[in-house]
Amino acid sequence: MASSPRMEEKFAPAKRVAGQKQDVWSIVNEAAAASPVQPIGYNPPQFVLDAAKSALDRVECNQYSPTKGRPRLKKAIADAYSPFFGRKLDPESEVTITTGANEGMLSAFMGFIEPGDEVIIFEPFFDQYLSNIEMAGGTIKYVPLHPPEDGGTRTSSAANWSIDFTELEAAITPKTKMMVLNSPHNPVGKVFSKSELTRIGDLCLKHDILILSDEVYDRLYYVPFTRIGTLSPELAQITLTVGSAGKNFYCTGWRVGYPLQEAAAVGFEQADAHRFWDSSVREMEGKVARFCHVFDELRLPYSQPEGGYFVLANLAKVKLPDGYDFPEHVRHRPRDFRMAWFLIMELGVAAIPPSEFYTQAREKVAEDWMRFAVCKEDAVLETAKERLRGLRRYIEE
Amino acid sequence: MASSPRMEEKFAPAKRVAGQKQDVWSIVNEAAAASPVQPIGYNPPQFVLDAAKSALDRVECNQYSPTKGRPRLKKAIADAYSPFFGRKLDPESEVTITTGANEGMLSAFMGFIEPGDEVIIFEPFFDQYLSNIEMAGGTIKYVPLHPPEDGGTRTSSAANWSIDFTELEAAITPKTKMMVLNSPHNPVGKVFSKSELTRIGDLCLKHDILILSDEVYDRLYYVPFTRIGTLSPELAQITLTVGSAGKNFYCTGWRVGYPLQEAAAVGFEQADAHRFWDSSVREMEGKVARFCHVFDELRLPYSQPEGGYFVLANLAKVKLPDGYDFPEHVRHRPRDFRMAWFLIMELGVAAIPPSEFYTQAREKVAEDWMRFAVCKEDAVLETAKERLRGLRRYIEE
Repeated sequence: MASSPRMEEKFAPAKRVAGQKQDVWSIVNEAAAASPVQPIGYNPPQFVLDAAKSALDRVECNQYSPTKGRPRLKKAIADAYSPFFGRKLDPESEVTITTGANEGMLSAFMGFIEPGDEVIIFEPFFDQYLSNIEMAGGTIKYVPLHPPEDGGTRTSSAANWSIDFTELEAAITPKTKMMVLNSPHNPVGKVFSKSELTRIGDLCLKHDILILSDEVYDRLYYVPFTRIGTLSPELAQITLTVGSAGKNFYCTGWRVGYPLQEAAAVGFEQADAHRFWDSSVREMEGKVARFCHVFDELRLPYSQPEGGYFVLANLAKVKLPDGYDFPEHVRHRPRDFRMAWFLIMELGVAAIPPSEFYTQAREKVAEDWMRFAVCKEDAVLETAKERLRGLRRYIEE
Repeated sequence: MASSPRMEEKFAPAKRVAGQKQDVWSIVNEAAAASPVQPIGYNPPQFVLDAAKSALDRVECNQYSPTKGRPRLKKAIADAYSPFFGRKLDPESEVTITTGANEGMLSAFMGFIEPGDEVIIFEPFFDQYLSNIEMAGGTIKYVPLHPPEDGGTRTSSAANWSIDFTELEAAITPKTKMMVLNSPHNPVGKVFSKSELTRIGDLCLKHDILILSDEVYDRLYYVPFTRIGTLSPELAQITLTVGSAGKNFYCTGWRVGYPLQEAAAVGFEQADAHRFWDSSVREMEGKVARFCHVFDELRLPYSQPEGGYFVLANLAKVKLPDGYDFPEHVRHRPRDFRMAWFLIMELGVAAIPPSEFYTQAREKVAEDWMRFAVCKEDAVLETAKERLRGLRRYIEE
């Protein structure tokens, strides 16, 4: 927009956005768009698609609705989640609808964080937390989730990514206002155990810390899943839980527009009758097993997810060819960024570099790993596996 | 959530949101929901609804898409607007998609306003500007749009709401970073003339002020409409123009979710072939005339809109019954809030009190007026007119 130096200074972007570098989702999207092979996603269930189309036929669903969400969706969510809390949730005072879970997280930060307040997050983290917290003027304190020491040589459960509670307590100061949890965890696939959540909850109660619990993969777990807000009435009082109809019903592109809220309501209302939650867990667990077989074949270790649809594979043994021509904005990123670029361009497989989920100081922890999403049709997974077999010639045993 | 005083202090909302009072849209929604008569909106055109349903059948439209918007929609918008600018707009660098125009405005403020920067807006203003600017830490300078002096006695064109350019220039300081324009104007219905926009643009160029031009009603004008960004290459460089597929295609509830972006793209692509823009102007102009007839009957003056679908009627002659039982959150608001409550509860007609578009210091300017939206089916307008005839017994001549 601006042209002269004077104008460039006068019309400079605000500091809160000026330093932002291109995020990993944009880089991967861009590379995928440039790749000859187009990735295909996973479709929402038919009963939810049908509900969306019916909603489009109703005048009031196409127009403004209450900004806190359509009453039917708030009620459907309260009804669907009341059993987990062992009491009737109030749709008016305990449920609110946002444009995607990401906006829900941002709203929680903007609603409670004053400039200078501290927010504790576990590392690796979903990268969007950072800009959301910074936008509210919060200061981030990072606490590591320690990968299993033998992660480079042995496949094991994501449960083995562990919290050092001494480190966690040391991160708490009088300025700590909020702690962010994420279970099932993205990208690790760890489901925080009841005992871990109890210890975390006790710390938060002791130090008056709000809990923001990102549970967007809450319908996909392969080990027992605990919601921290349900552990006690005291914890319920200090916990904001964020869910996602987009994740629940495989319609991440909906970012719930109002007519689609009506469809999401039907989703929550009828999911049990369609045995949708059970079948999606079974289906996704099967996809994890189906997909990981290729890593077994290639003798590449990986972390077995306890929940969600992400697999972290360790690609330390894959050698990138010397002198490979990486574009400028990827060349100086950690190894996993270069690996992601290489996988897309050479094999036609899109994966997310997990160092994006780390601060620069600790990004090396993650650079041998790569996050693969298995929420695809089986035929797509088989194609991806076949393509990944092309890695064999780059693997050094 | 919180219970003890200690917790209430520790878990207090951030200052940026703590002072917010319930906005007019929520109050009117709540009253309308409590009213026995349900208002009905206006449906999007069938070709756009059909496009939405087709998009729902495509896997990729239901899933994540580029955060800056689907390429087809960006291209459709660039193609649809290039003729107004007399050059080819670049869909990649000159068009971006947000979740509704309101988020577009917020993004512009968050992207350019540093704490302490000043933003000039005309009063009355669309109330959402205020919290958006405040969230970015900006300071608001108000410049009045002066109502016609004989507005209480004579019906006239919204063109007669005027800018005092001495006042406008006096509001500019070295800290002024941005000026917000809105044409066709909500709630006034004024379409800023080419000469007004030229004078405003000259001031902004002289003082290095960014222009944020809210043109969400840009397809509904009944007098010649000028887009300030098209007046000169210099003005194009400093202007951010905000449009709205939700307003353009009567689907304000879509807040453009990704599958619906596909439908919005078809909207822009095919609108001319369907002669949709022309017919919607004709149709809406007809609805303004049809609806205003009831004010002529009642001898209530109004401001004839030059664009958009809002009519400001002057209800100074309508006397609210002594001792009428207004709820607490309405009783102490300006007269137009009480009038809005009265119209909904007694007549079943929902209208927006325009003092919401004013600061408290100047809210009296607006309290005799009421904003009516005519974007409804004719049968609904006739019902509303019939109900408004019930005002006759409250009118003092």
